[in-house]
Amino acid sequence: MIRVTIWNENVHETDQNEVGEECRKWYPEGIHTALKNNLAAPDLEIRTAYLAQPAQGLPDELLNSTDVLLWWGHCAHGEVEDALVSRIQDRVLGGMGLIVLHSGHKSKIFQRMLGTSCRLVWRDIAERERVWTVDPGHPIAQGIPSSFPIEHTEMYGEPFGIPDDGKIVFLSWYQGGNVFRSGVCFQRDRGKIFYFAPGHETFPIYHNTNVVRILANAIRWAAPIAPVRDDAQNCSHECDPIEPIA
Amino acid sequence: MIRVTIWNENVHETDQNEVGEECRKWYPEGIHTALKNNLAAPDLEIRTAYLAQPAQGLPDELLNSTDVLLWWGHCAHGEVEDALVSRIQDRVLGGMGLIVLHSGHKSKIFQRMLGTSCRLVWRDIAERERVWTVDPGHPIAQGIPSSFPIEHTEMYGEPFGIPDDGKIVFLSWYQGGNVFRSGVCFQRDRGKIFYFAPGHETFPIYHNTNVVRILANAIRWAAPIAPVRDDAQNCSHECDPIEPIA
Amino acid sequence: MIRVTIWNENVHETDQNEVGEECRKWYPEGIHTALKNNLAAPDLEIRTAYLAQPAQGLPDELLNSTDVLLWWGHCAHGEVEDALVSRIQDRVLGGMGLIVLHSGHKSKIFQRMLGTSCRLVWRDIAERERVWTVDPGHPIAQGIPSSFPIEHTEMYGEPFGIPDDGKIVFLSWYQGGNVFRSGVCFQRDRGKIFYFAPGHETFPIYHNTNVVRILANAIRWAAPIAPVRDDAQNCSHECDPIEPIA
Amino acid sequence: MIRVTIWNENVHETDQNEVGEECRKWYPEGIHTALKNNLAAPDLEIRTAYLAQPAQGLPDELLNSTDVLLWWGHCAHGEVEDALVSRIQDRVLGGMGLIVLHSGHKSKIFQRMLGTSCRLVWRDIAERERVWTVDPGHPIAQGIPSSFPIEHTEMYGEPFGIPDDGKIVFLSWYQGGNVFRSGVCFQRDRGKIFYFAPGHETFPIYHNTNVVRILANAIRWAAPIAPVRDDAQNCSHECDPIEPIA
Repeated sequence: MIRVTIWNENVHETDQNEVGEECRKWYPEGIHTALKNNLAAPDLEIRTAYLAQPAQGLPDELLNSTDVLLWWGHCAHGEVEDALVSRIQDRVLGGMGLIVLHSGHKSKIFQRMLGTSCRLVWRDIAERERVWTVDPGHPIAQGIPSSFPIEHTEMYGEPFGIPDDGKIVFLSWYQGGNVFRSGVCFQRDRGKIFYFAPGHETFPIYHNTNVVRILANAIRWAAPIAPVRDDAQNCSHECDPIEPIA
Repeated sequence: MIRVTIWNENVHETDQNEVGEECRKWYPEGIHTALKNNLAAPDLEIRTAYLAQPAQGLPDELLNSTDVLLWWGHCAHGEVEDALVSRIQDRVLGGMGLIVLHSGHKSKIFQRMLGTSCRLVWRDIAERERVWTVDPGHPIAQGIPSSFPIEHTEMYGEPFGIPDDGKIVFLSWYQGGNVFRSGVCFQRDRGKIFYFAPGHETFPIYHNTNVVRILANAIRWAAPIAPVRDDAQNCSHECDPIEPIA
Repeated sequence: MIRVTIWNENVHETDQNEVGEECRKWYPEGIHTALKNNLAAPDLEIRTAYLAQPAQGLPDELLNSTDVLLWWGHCAHGEVEDALVSRIQDRVLGGMGLIVLHSGHKSKIFQRMLGTSCRLVWRDIAERERVWTVDPGHPIAQGIPSSFPIEHTEMYGEPFGIPDDGKIVFLSWYQGGNVFRSGVCFQRDRGKIFYFAPGHETFPIYHNTNVVRILANAIRWAAPIAPVRDDAQNCSHECDPIEPIA
Repeated sequence: MIRVTIWNENVHETDQNEVGEECRKWYPEGIHTALKNNLAAPDLEIRTAYLAQPAQGLPDELLNSTDVLLWWGHCAHGEVEDALVSRIQDRVLGGMGLIVLHSGHKSKIFQRMLGTSCRLVWRDIAERERVWTVDPGHPIAQGIPSSFPIEHTEMYGEPFGIPDDGKIVFLSWYQGGNVFRSGVCFQRDRGKIFYFAPGHETFPIYHNTNVVRILANAIRWAAPIAPVRDDAQNCSHECDPIEPIA
């Protein structure tokens, strides 16, 4: 049983404007609940959490029992406390999987894990995106066609400021002329990280069959293969000579 | 002309104990001054800086005129202000080279750039190290023999918690049985980073001809090839359609 | 059930000299049979093959039913036919795992897959080796201690001529002063490749518990996650426009 | 002075059909001569060679005095002798730069260097391509805008069967809905390799200012930084103990 926690800043969901209305239309109980329902499976124990909860939704007992954390944020990145970011980073380094969604490219936790600018260019005019499978043999690409369309999307385009060890699984084409490394894997110490660009607060992308399948695959791929360690940041230690000093 | 700044926490140099005495024996004017003297060359303009200075040694006018920053720290990592770390990170992302020395593996700036634990194991018994050139064609390895000894060193050993895109230039062998990726390159946005393990406050390693040659090569390798940009963290922007939307 | 084929050139085993005597002492039925016995497990169907057999041991029906191929060769690399090497390469690209052992670094198949020199330096004086686990979270390192000794080994040392995407799982220390990237993973199209240096014709290294565990782990890691494809070399094809040409 | 050799199979240039006519329209003296003229610069000594010449255009004295080799081939890949491919591979491993153009993805030398399928999908309907600069800080991207169009191109699309250490400098967008890693760097032993997709026998792409600038940058990037070694394939050697065996 993989213990999954879906974290959502859950802000657009209550916006009293057009964005909020559109968001509630596709995600009436929030993006986190939609993802939980769409990802439901016998081998997954899925919990949800959001920013307005105590401990910003991730008290120790929840974070420390999470095998794979999904992260959705957009307009409230700055409100996430640095201490929480450090606790999440420690757990990722210890082996917890981390799946960062769409606008999470500018989240504190993604930038903390990668160290780069995570810059990109963007455009929000509901254009068409086509997602290409670049590594069809990758576990996250199993069951996904060579390409699939997303009718209405927010464009995220290159140059994308990420490190070179990003293993590219998906590349996106956009109607307006841009391209993007839209599905990329990283490893940091024992933890696996997957960034996936498709997804948005006002489009029904998290109801797209292929998108859901990709996230479902990513959860299994990112799940730790051994118990998550809690000493990632303090694991440096003195070491006696292991061979005789002549 | 490459503008180099050598930053030193400069704490051991004034310790009133055996470490301080040993440190002053090899580095009477501080590690930063020894490095400055040993690296002197017509194409380098070398400045030094240290923690106790105003702005922790790196006011904007110095940092923003630095092409390559060398960083030596050990016992005062925690005193470096987070705001300074952010300013250094921004400049690295914009293209400034960063060379992190020895115990700088636990510096805030190195951990900020890499996002990993930077863990290792260590032993300080003055054993012998042998540095092996793993990529003899790399610019940083030019003029360096296939291997060279360091008679007395502090051992830094695997596992070393760094990302997978570290390009390994040197590997070290230690008398007591350990091994280490002791010379490793990274790129983060436009900035090049080189970590080099050999070096210590109480051994004359920064007077070793091969070590100095490696650092001299690394400075030229890490120097920006275009003016350093100052918009690294704010370079995301909206983008009009560049191809006609049908 | 993972279908494993262990290929051995099986030449030293019949040498009428000291090497042959020593080889038969540890591997009376050949290295392939020793590995088969030591790796036996309920989820593995293990077959063996050797150079002197028809079709050099790998007729189509055997190769095309192999999920993971182990390759041991040393003095007869040149006798392996190029056409067989091409057939193996095609199957690796289609998804078959390939585990290359010790002196297989100079085998035609390893060089075909990597394209580099695969150069190294070597010394055969029965010195001690210590294998370090560099990535303790890797599937191939599960159950392996942080380091373990091999009492008598042939030294393989850096520089090792392999591509930069080699994911390093193990590094070796040698008594005589050398170091080596002794356990390294690659992916080529859909196929996973693991090179493991420890092992020799005259030392009982393939009876070492940790070595056997590493190879057992590597077989599970390298096993294909989907049926192996047989069109790797001919999978380029013409593609109609998938979006309307304006 | 960088000694550049531009090799062209030079077959379409003499075709007695529409392809030949179109090719001669843009490249009346052959693609190799057009590239030579367009790349002319004071620091480059440019020679040309083609398949129909003695020694298939690359006798030892020419190959062994080449610092950077550009390779254009399409319909005659199979005619290039394996022995020539081996000689080129040896020189690349020793430090010669190799720039593989367009349909050279299926050349023997590119496949020999990479070991993968180099598969892709294609379409030749003169659609529009847009080349995106993914790593604006890379030497090959200096002076190139964030994106530029190629009005009429042959589409090359993902999945592209190349190894994971390909450093992506450019990504292409195509009007018909595809994407491609169109500018990718590799290192193999001491040699640098750049693959660049834009270019074709019947389009004037090698007269495009940005394309020429990219190739000009790539030549300087790929040029060896030390004399090219001629022992790449025979550089393994026995090594005495370098530290005392206890």
